[in-house]
Amino acid sequence: MEFELIARVRARAALRADVELGIGDDAAIVRVPDGMRLVVATDTLNVGVHFPEGTAPADIGWKALAVNLSDLAAMAADPAWCTLSLSLPRADAAWLDGFLDGFLELAARHGVVLVGGDTTRGPLSICVTALGLVAPERELRRGRAAVGDEVWVTGTLGDAAAALKLAGGDGSMAAADPGQARRLRDRLDRPEPRVAVARALAGIASACIDVSDGLLADLGHVCSASGVGAEVVLEALPASPALAALLPARARRAVQACGGDDYELCFTAPVQRRDEVARIAAGCGVAVTRIGAVVAGERVRALDAQGAEWTPERSGHDHFAG
Amino acid sequence: MEFELIARVRARAALRADVELGIGDDAAIVRVPDGMRLVVATDTLNVGVHFPEGTAPADIGWKALAVNLSDLAAMAADPAWCTLSLSLPRADAAWLDGFLDGFLELAARHGVVLVGGDTTRGPLSICVTALGLVAPERELRRGRAAVGDEVWVTGTLGDAAAALKLAGGDGSMAAADPGQARRLRDRLDRPEPRVAVARALAGIASACIDVSDGLLADLGHVCSASGVGAEVVLEALPASPALAALLPARARRAVQACGGDDYELCFTAPVQRRDEVARIAAGCGVAVTRIGAVVAGERVRALDAQGAEWTPERSGHDHFAG
Repeated sequence: MEFELIARVRARAALRADVELGIGDDAAIVRVPDGMRLVVATDTLNVGVHFPEGTAPADIGWKALAVNLSDLAAMAADPAWCTLSLSLPRADAAWLDGFLDGFLELAARHGVVLVGGDTTRGPLSICVTALGLVAPERELRRGRAAVGDEVWVTGTLGDAAAALKLAGGDGSMAAADPGQARRLRDRLDRPEPRVAVARALAGIASACIDVSDGLLADLGHVCSASGVGAEVVLEALPASPALAALLPARARRAVQACGGDDYELCFTAPVQRRDEVARIAAGCGVAVTRIGAVVAGERVRALDAQGAEWTPERSGHDHFAG
Repeated sequence: MEFELIARVRARAALRADVELGIGDDAAIVRVPDGMRLVVATDTLNVGVHFPEGTAPADIGWKALAVNLSDLAAMAADPAWCTLSLSLPRADAAWLDGFLDGFLELAARHGVVLVGGDTTRGPLSICVTALGLVAPERELRRGRAAVGDEVWVTGTLGDAAAALKLAGGDGSMAAADPGQARRLRDRLDRPEPRVAVARALAGIASACIDVSDGLLADLGHVCSASGVGAEVVLEALPASPALAALLPARARRAVQACGGDDYELCFTAPVQRRDEVARIAAGCGVAVTRIGAVVAGERVRALDAQGAEWTPERSGHDHFAG
């Protein structure tokens, strides 16, 4: 049955001219263009930890690839190939077909080809490795933010965390209308890796990270790596219409500042590149918002409208917590 | 706690001059030498499926990397970098330290550097992606065996399967003395990826695969990919002294021909390269044994000393069976 599953995957995998040998041997062989750097990201999704029980297989497939492409995006890399290691409680061809629908839809959008992997028996778990390319000195990193830079985010923050609360039946949230609830859930299930805008910002942004653990935690990683601090203005955090309808500004602070799983980019850029950043993002059709500044120090401070520091109960997402 | 675990891994990861950016950013960046091909293998190990409950963490670490390096070896690739995605039921620093002991010991032997990965909560599961390099046209593949070639294996076969039976308390096996039982168990827990001999055989061997599912099943993959059949002489299958002491020739057929997890190489080579194969293997300090021939057809036939076909109850290892 293992080989039948592999055959199902292989039959649907796309081709790229730079793949010498794809699925079906002990390993894949690909060609890296001379002079380009190879960028490698790997992330595992486990049921109940990274997606709620009952998530549609196609959404799991999409997300398993999306979180890895988001990591490549944060480096300004161009995604090229990926591998998929799938642990399934039983050999379920229908589940696999649904999973591949989502996985391969996103792969096709980014020109990524599945070149290998394995299937095995075990509790539902998906490990993806994504490989991308970047020209030397065109990559973005966490560790190059400088005092005086501005802090930006793409898109909106908090939708995924709000959807997770709704899925968990959080009674503190206003009853969302079904359309809005669906839009929030889409953000949780089908994050959009910000590949194009990140690549366009290479050479302009000073540092970049994707928001997977929560804005304050992830910006904290940028600060540690760069040896700086940051101040973020809570009122500036961009919210989707669906989230704004669900929660007033004050009540949505926690999901926006600390909720994980948005897979937007948080990046820094010098003040004098502000107009360029806005122009480039508009050209990519991606909203960007200035949310704060890089300062001397080593902490990330979240400030309310009066300039007072706001402290969340917990500042990020820890997969080993709870 | 997640970040503490990552810090533990990062502190112990080795360096290579071709790693631009290792653990600690959204993705790693490495340099592939101009003109070299990139070889990518990925494999997951789950508790109770790929290793018995109670296996020492250091042995799990070794094996998680070994099975991937074995895949690179089967392509005649030179291992360079790897990623590690670790799902743990709880954040257990002592377990992680033990795991890294085995993982990094094997990595150091092969000059492989750990450049990234993630840790998350879930049932114990380890996904490793190994990246290697091979010069164009120097790779080994499954699909190039030709009628008339001889079939070879490295090392000995059946130790790992016998150890698994002993671990499961199989009463049909003679009581092994503790030293022999330990030697068998070592083969199960600490397979040696045959990297050096595979690379030396590039250009001489016509096809190659690693024996992970069982000899007959894996040779079957070579035959399907090459459009040929094969005949294997059961009496010729090399057995370790420990296995020979445990089981007489007839009784060990099943573990030798069908047992998985040996991670030896099965390869084919033209008859006229026979002496070269032997000389190269001796130079690498690896035993090689001729066990059969590639023939017209599409089946793998296992023959007894009288030339009669022997049919195993099942021909390979299916992770979804049982």
